[in-house]
Formats: sequence, C-alpha cells, structure tokens
Amino acid sequence: MTDQSQIQLPEDKPLEIAGRVYKSRLLVGTGKYRDMMETGHAIEASGAEIVTVAVRRTNLGQNPDEPNLLDVISPDSFTILPNTAGCYNARDAVRTCKLARELLNGHNLVKLEVLGEEKTLYPNMTETLVAAEELIRDGFQVMVYCSDDPLLCKRLEEMGCIAIMPLGAPIGSGLGIQNRYNIRLIVENASVPVLVDAGVGTASDATIAMELGCDGVLMNTAIAQAQDPIRMARAMKLAIESGREAYLSGRMPKKAYASASSPIDGIFF
Amino acid sequence: MTDQSQIQLPEDKPLEIAGRVYKSRLLVGTGKYRDMMETGHAIEASGAEIVTVAVRRTNLGQNPDEPNLLDVISPDSFTILPNTAGCYNARDAVRTCKLARELLNGHNLVKLEVLGEEKTLYPNMTETLVAAEELIRDGFQVMVYCSDDPLLCKRLEEMGCIAIMPLGAPIGSGLGIQNRYNIRLIVENASVPVLVDAGVGTASDATIAMELGCDGVLMNTAIAQAQDPIRMARAMKLAIESGREAYLSGRMPKKAYASASSPIDGIFF
Amino acid sequence: MTDQSQIQLPEDKPLEIAGRVYKSRLLVGTGKYRDMMETGHAIEASGAEIVTVAVRRTNLGQNPDEPNLLDVISPDSFTILPNTAGCYNARDAVRTCKLARELLNGHNLVKLEVLGEEKTLYPNMTETLVAAEELIRDGFQVMVYCSDDPLLCKRLEEMGCIAIMPLGAPIGSGLGIQNRYNIRLIVENASVPVLVDAGVGTASDATIAMELGCDGVLMNTAIAQAQDPIRMARAMKLAIESGREAYLSGRMPKKAYASASSPIDGIFF
Amino acid sequence: MTDQSQIQLPEDKPLEIAGRVYKSRLLVGTGKYRDMMETGHAIEASGAEIVTVAVRRTNLGQNPDEPNLLDVISPDSFTILPNTAGCYNARDAVRTCKLARELLNGHNLVKLEVLGEEKTLYPNMTETLVAAEELIRDGFQVMVYCSDDPLLCKRLEEMGCIAIMPLGAPIGSGLGIQNRYNIRLIVENASVPVLVDAGVGTASDATIAMELGCDGVLMNTAIAQAQDPIRMARAMKLAIESGREAYLSGRMPKKAYASASSPIDGIFF
Repeated sequence: MTDQSQIQLPEDKPLEIAGRVYKSRLLVGTGKYRDMMETGHAIEASGAEIVTVAVRRTNLGQNPDEPNLLDVISPDSFTILPNTAGCYNARDAVRTCKLARELLNGHNLVKLEVLGEEKTLYPNMTETLVAAEELIRDGFQVMVYCSDDPLLCKRLEEMGCIAIMPLGAPIGSGLGIQNRYNIRLIVENASVPVLVDAGVGTASDATIAMELGCDGVLMNTAIAQAQDPIRMARAMKLAIESGREAYLSGRMPKKAYASASSPIDGIFF
Repeated sequence: MTDQSQIQLPEDKPLEIAGRVYKSRLLVGTGKYRDMMETGHAIEASGAEIVTVAVRRTNLGQNPDEPNLLDVISPDSFTILPNTAGCYNARDAVRTCKLARELLNGHNLVKLEVLGEEKTLYPNMTETLVAAEELIRDGFQVMVYCSDDPLLCKRLEEMGCIAIMPLGAPIGSGLGIQNRYNIRLIVENASVPVLVDAGVGTASDATIAMELGCDGVLMNTAIAQAQDPIRMARAMKLAIESGREAYLSGRMPKKAYASASSPIDGIFF
Repeated sequence: MTDQSQIQLPEDKPLEIAGRVYKSRLLVGTGKYRDMMETGHAIEASGAEIVTVAVRRTNLGQNPDEPNLLDVISPDSFTILPNTAGCYNARDAVRTCKLARELLNGHNLVKLEVLGEEKTLYPNMTETLVAAEELIRDGFQVMVYCSDDPLLCKRLEEMGCIAIMPLGAPIGSGLGIQNRYNIRLIVENASVPVLVDAGVGTASDATIAMELGCDGVLMNTAIAQAQDPIRMARAMKLAIESGREAYLSGRMPKKAYASASSPIDGIFF
Repeated sequence: MTDQSQIQLPEDKPLEIAGRVYKSRLLVGTGKYRDMMETGHAIEASGAEIVTVAVRRTNLGQNPDEPNLLDVISPDSFTILPNTAGCYNARDAVRTCKLARELLNGHNLVKLEVLGEEKTLYPNMTETLVAAEELIRDGFQVMVYCSDDPLLCKRLEEMGCIAIMPLGAPIGSGLGIQNRYNIRLIVENASVPVLVDAGVGTASDATIAMELGCDGVLMNTAIAQAQDPIRMARAMKLAIESGREAYLSGRMPKKAYASASSPIDGIFF
C-alpha cells in the first residue's frame, strides 16, 4: 500500500535529447496529410520542435524536381528526425540512416525503426538490436522504435540508444496504450527519455502516456487523420502538457468509497 | 459502422449557464485544501470561473466572526455556485438553497445535491426530483448532481434544470468515469449543458469526459488532494481544454490493424 | 489495504427465490431464436431452471390456434417467469402481470420491467417504483429489472421485491458489465438475491458478474444470437458455475510485481 | 466491419502436444501450496493432465532422502512438464533441461523459461531464442514461455518450438491479460498451440484467454494462493471449458444500442 504522504514527487527534468533541451514533449510525423500546406499548419499548431520524416517516402532533396519537405519544415526551426519507416531489415535501415545523414549535412540524430511485418507494423526486435548496434558504432545518435518489452528496452538503452520509443499499439491503429503496465515499467527502469511512439488515437491517450511518466509522445495518424487536423494538433499539445503536469503533481490515490481512508484494493477492481 | 467521412463535426457552442457565457469549462470546489490561501491559489491556477461552495460547511457570512470565503473567492470575479452538500433529503436541500439566496443577495443559481448515504455520497434520485421541482417553482436556476441514468437525467432537464451533472464515480474516489456509455448517452440526449460532477482523479479522466462530449467538468478532491494542488489545477485546466478540442476535431476511428481500412469490430475487443 | 489472511470467505448460500431453491444460477429468455425447437434445445443445454417469457410477445395460451410456448417449456420442468417486456408505463406492466397470473393459473412470480425508451431499453425507474408497489400490494412476488443505482436497488428491496435485477449494459447490446463498481455495491448492500439482467455478451461477462458476488445472471441475446446457440448455452452454464466457484474461493490479490508482497496501489493502475 | 453471418466458426481441434491429445486445456504448476497434500488435491480438482514442475526447486529424485513430488503427481497419471524456472541465461536453462531428461528417463518434453530479472520474472527473449535453438537441436520438444511480441512468438514457432506460451501479465501478479490485442494476434498467426502462461488471477481471466482463441492456459499462483485452492482449481477447470465453448460458439457482436443493427464503432468506445 502506498502511504501518499511519503511519496516523493518526480523530479521536473527538462526533455533533453542529443544535448539539446526541448520545451515541447510532443513529436510529430509528416505523413497522411492532404497536402504540405496542411502538414505545415498542423505541425505549427502542435507546438512540436522535433519532426520525424520517413526518408524513404519523403523528398528531402533526393528528387530535385519535386517539392522538398524541408522548404515547409525548415531545419532552422525544427529538429528534423529522419526515420527508417518502410525498412524491414537491419541492412536497409542502416543504409537509410546513412542516406539521411548525407541529405541533412552530417546530421547524426535518427529514429530507427525496423519493421517486422505489414499488418501491424510492429518492430522486428532482433533486427532492431543489430541495426542499433551498427548505427551507434557508426556515430549515430539513435532514438529507437521498439516493442514494450521492458528488458529489450533496457538493453537498447545499455547499448547506447539515446531514447527508447516503445509502441502503445500498432502504428496507425488509434487504439491507445494497450499495456500500461509495461510502459510504466519501462519508465521506472530507464535513465534515458522514454517516448511512446505509435498507437495514440485521441488526446486522452497522450495524457495517459504522460501520466505514466513518459518523457514525450510521438504521433502522426491521430493528428493527420482527425477530421480537423489543425484542431487535433492543438488538442494534442494541450494533452501532453496536461499529462506532464498531472504526473508531476502526484495524483490522489484511488479510493473504493467516498469516505475511504485507504486506497482501493486488488480484490474486486 | 461509422463512415468517418460522413460524420458531421460537433458544433462549437460556448458554455452558457443561466444566461452567462463562460470561457472555462472547469468548475471547482473549495473543500479539502490546507487553508484558504491554498484554495485561492489553486482556483486561480485552474482558470475556473464558476466556484461551488458547500453552504452548510462554509462561512459565507453566517458566522460574522470567522473568515469569510467570499473574501478569497470574490463574487465580483467568480460565479459563486452554492451547493447543498450534506443534505440527505429534499426539505434540507431546499432550505439550504434559500439560505444561500439570502446570503448571496438574491442570487438564484444553485447546485442541488441530495445525497443518499455516506459511503458513496451517491444522490438520492427520488428526493432529488422532489427538490428540483420545488426549487424551480420557487425561481431557482438549478444545476443538478445526479446518477448517470440517462432517463432520469432527461427528466430533470424536462423539469427545467438548467444543467445536468451526472457522477462519473463516487465523490472523492478518484476512480475516473465508470460508465462512459451512459455519459455518452446523456450527452446525446441533452439540450442543456452536461457536466460530469464527481469521480475525476487525474487529468486524463477529465479529458475523457470532454471527449465524450460533455460541456464541462466539476471537481474538487482531484485538485485539493493531489500532492501539489496548484500544479494539478493547471493540469486540469489544460486537460479540459485538450478534451474539448479533441472532441471538436473528430478523432480518427480505431482500427484493428495498422493497415486496416475499416474500424475495429465488436468481436474480440 | 486488504490483509488477505483476514478476509472471510463469503457464505455459500443456495439461490432461493420465492421459497424455492435452485441449483442453476443462470436464468434465460426465449426470444430471438430461429424456432421453438432451437429455443428448447438451447434452454436444455443452459441447465436453466427459471425461464422468463415476454407475456406480450409469446403465446402462453392467449391464442389457442397458435403454438404454445408452454408445450416446449413445460411449467412442470421449469419455473416460468412471466415478464413485462414491451411495457412503457406502470399501468401496462401491472395489467400484463395480471394477465400472466390468469394464464398461469394463479402463479404469482413475475419479472417486472418498465421500459423508458426504445433505443436502450433502459428501465423507467420512477414508473418501476410505482408498478412494484402496486404489484406487491396485490400479492405478486416481484423480481425487478432496474438500473444499477445502488440506492434505488435498495429501495426496491425494502419495498418488498424478492430479487433485484440491475442491468449490466443495454438489453441486447452484448457490451458486458459497464459499471462493475455499482454492481459490486448493490451486492454488498442487498439481503435478497441480486441477478445481473441484460448486457452479457459472452461467457467471461457472466463469469465476471458472478465473481462480483451476484447470485445469478439472466440472459437471452448472448445465447440466442451466438452463431451456435446450443454451444453458447453450454458455455454460459459453465461460466456461471465457474464465476460462482471463483467468488467463493477468495481470489489472490492483484500485485504490482511478481515478487510484491503488497497489493497493487491506486496510483498508476 | 464484420458481417456476422459470414464469419466462419473456428474449427474444434483437440489440444495436441508432442503427439498426445489432451482433454483438459488447463495446465498447472506445483508451487506455493501449503503442502504436498494440498498440491495433490488442487491438481486433481483442476482436471489438469499436464503438470509443470520447477526442476531447480522440486525434488524429482535429486535428493533421495526427501519427499519426491513424483510420488504425489505420478508420471503414470500426468504428463510431467519440467520447467526451467529460476534460470537467468540460456546455459543454465539448457543444463536444467538435460538434468530433467535424466531424472525423467529420457522424457523430452520441457517448458523453457529464461528469466530476465526478478521483479517481473519477464523472459529474457534473446537468451530464450538461444536456448530454444540449442534444445531443439538436442532433440527436446520445447514449449516456450515468452513475451507477447507476436513476431518473436512466430519466430519461436518457426524455429521448431511445439507450443508458444506468451505471458498475460507478470508471473504471480494476478493482474489478468494486459494486452488482449497481442494475444489475439499471436493466436491468429500461429499453427502450433498457444497457451497463456502467467498473469491469470481469477476465473474470468482464464475464460478471456480462451475466448481470444488460445488453446490453453497454464497457471499456478491463482490457484495456490486463493484462499480455498481446491475450490479455485475447480473454478479454473470450468472457466477454461467455458471460454473454449464460447470461442467455438461465435459470440454475438457488440452493439452500441439495444436496437442497433450494426456493431459498435470505434469513435466513442
């Protein structure tokens, strides 16, 4: 049982990634919008400072004749986080990171994702471990999309990944965090930032991630596929801030009855 | 099944109660704080414009020698919403409302709560119906704390109550909304504001209430009994705004798989 | 916190209704089957001893030229429980009970349901109270379909109802028990049998009702609308027995960790 | 959306493990009982035909002077499933399996568990993969305790494991299945039996596992640490049977309203 008065409030550390401090704890993607205009407005409304970009699907200068995303999302204003979406093995992922580094003038920060299959877009964890190791050896700063297995998350951290990004539910599903227990455990174990990546569908999902103690949340579909993406971007901004504040506040314990002096037990609920 | 493209976004009506429009959709109580100072600071941080006060437990001038809450929460800055907490029958509740009207110089707006028993502080719905009828006849503008029975909620509205305030969980329990289905149904049926009153424990609980389409949330313990009430008040302010924005945005539908084109069905989940 | 060693196991009382003891705690309806043959087989597989019949929709002899349900479900083998499905006010419900008494030769046991509206088939609780009072005065033994409001449930018991039958979710929805907290509270408060009536969709829903301490469950659609109703009837029989045994066994407390010695607290989960 | 009439009912395959067909789909452990007498009675009540034994903690003849579990749980009546509980790396696990084979006269069937850390007793998946490979090469028939990562589960199957045993929640926690989505996915993907191993706390948890389509459930603490273990063993036997029957019956779809003709959508619930 938890004696509420003895709980120490969590420390209010700023979010620091690769030596840079961020005010926003919301990271966003750029896919599934109607057009680049909408992408730009939604990202602005989200207040995000880190924007992830699928190198294999986005023109960052590979095709000089097509519109370049960096004209809308400028590296001067945002931290561009190239990701390896669409890669199904370590080799492709590593190669994609190297391409990104070239396109972005030596930028070392990447989000590694090595997918396992198309239905869920779940990560292939063994290939992820292989790719992470190689990228770290090659000087990359690796934020890593992974399953919510607390032990594999810890291993990725020990290997040198600078942020752990467990999934809450399948990419694009909007199902919300399926296993709060594991996310909480990953947070308790970690000394690097933990960011929920994938699965958020609406604002409360993001708030819950933050209340569990996560350092941030990355999302794309929940904003891009809302009927009003700009407004949902704003909702998500507030949701992340709200969840962070609630986490730092030390919530009241749940009680079985209005008048109960002790928290709810584990028998009936 | 819902064809997402045909869903009409909800109308963004401002919160109007008793002819006055409010920007904040968070209503707060004044109980369980360490002292009046903390009460004042928390309420300020919450951004609330409506503050509910238990007439039977609070000095609004009944005891001229003791500190008067209205000195901290001034009727010039806030809408004071006297409530009948502690009343267990219609007669006591009506008498308490009349006392409040006197103390507040003819102020007609009240929150009616007729409690059923001490363990849960659930409302006694039959006495609530009796009291509501009498108060309305007597010229009061009645916001009413009630169970989450959609039919009784509709009846209170038809009787003339100006806001319906179903409980999410027992007062002071912090358990969060127990029956989202009913809250959603009450919202669908109502033409007056619906505010969840009681049961919220942390920010995401408030966000969920708003995502279900509620017009606002009233809370007290979740803020007052957090370890850092001022910070939690801020979290709640953001949570309410976030949930409202998410509701108005039209969330993406939940999908069974990353690649699914149709929403999740009701067989397994 | 619950000290597991001090919890007293619940008493294993048999289910007694109107002076008769039943071995089965599963009560079933007769609607929505393909034909009377299937109805009969499913009921047999369910092991139910009490079968509820909608007097307004079923031929119990009113129409001498049509097939009579009592030829399939014989009052010699089953307790026939006439119900007032389709009644939307107290008067109709009382009249229907009287008709049932005539058709069933003075049989006094009825299931009262006074519906509020068609969308949810939720009960109209004020009309239910009126009808219950009149029926009890007239010598009926009233089992009563009601909302999950613990106070109204208690009032129906005090009025003389011999069994309280709160809904778990809308009739025919298959959503499972929406508010476990209230069902548990109703059970804790009651001295007459509490049976969940409506909302069960699959076996685990029924098991959960029994684990909360209910004395039984009444269902219809979950069996009749399964793809294989006979098999689902068998599943439900086992589910009810399983949940009852689990309730009587005193389950292990939930623990936050594999090695935890104290139950899970109310902070994160 | 699922057109209920077109859903094909799942095939009713018997549970076959290592060439032997079992009637019971409940597998049980032998730890945490008061004494061997209680162990024996609980196992009998559970109807289990497969009993798992922690080789490192149980005397199967290693200590000739102490009571031998095989005298209570005879290999003539039960399939003894030696497990590697307490092993934290592949080497220890392999060695333990070899010891078991000796003690059990060449018996090749084992349950592999390689733990990652003591707090959760979660599996170390990379060591599990190494151990599984070596054991299979050495002629063992490997049932494998694993995380609920659908891709790693598939890989263990492709490697030759004869049963996949994902965890529902930490061993001994009684929290119930935390991620139904993943368990369902593992079942959909698998061609060998899938058995939930760990996390079940009460009967409905086991029923839910079976309703998701699992082929069986292994449990220990939920029975041994119930207040009345014999009765809980009976409850679990019924729960497993009930869940299996419900799964095979094809449950009704969940509906948003009593009168709805289409399943519930993914917007609000």
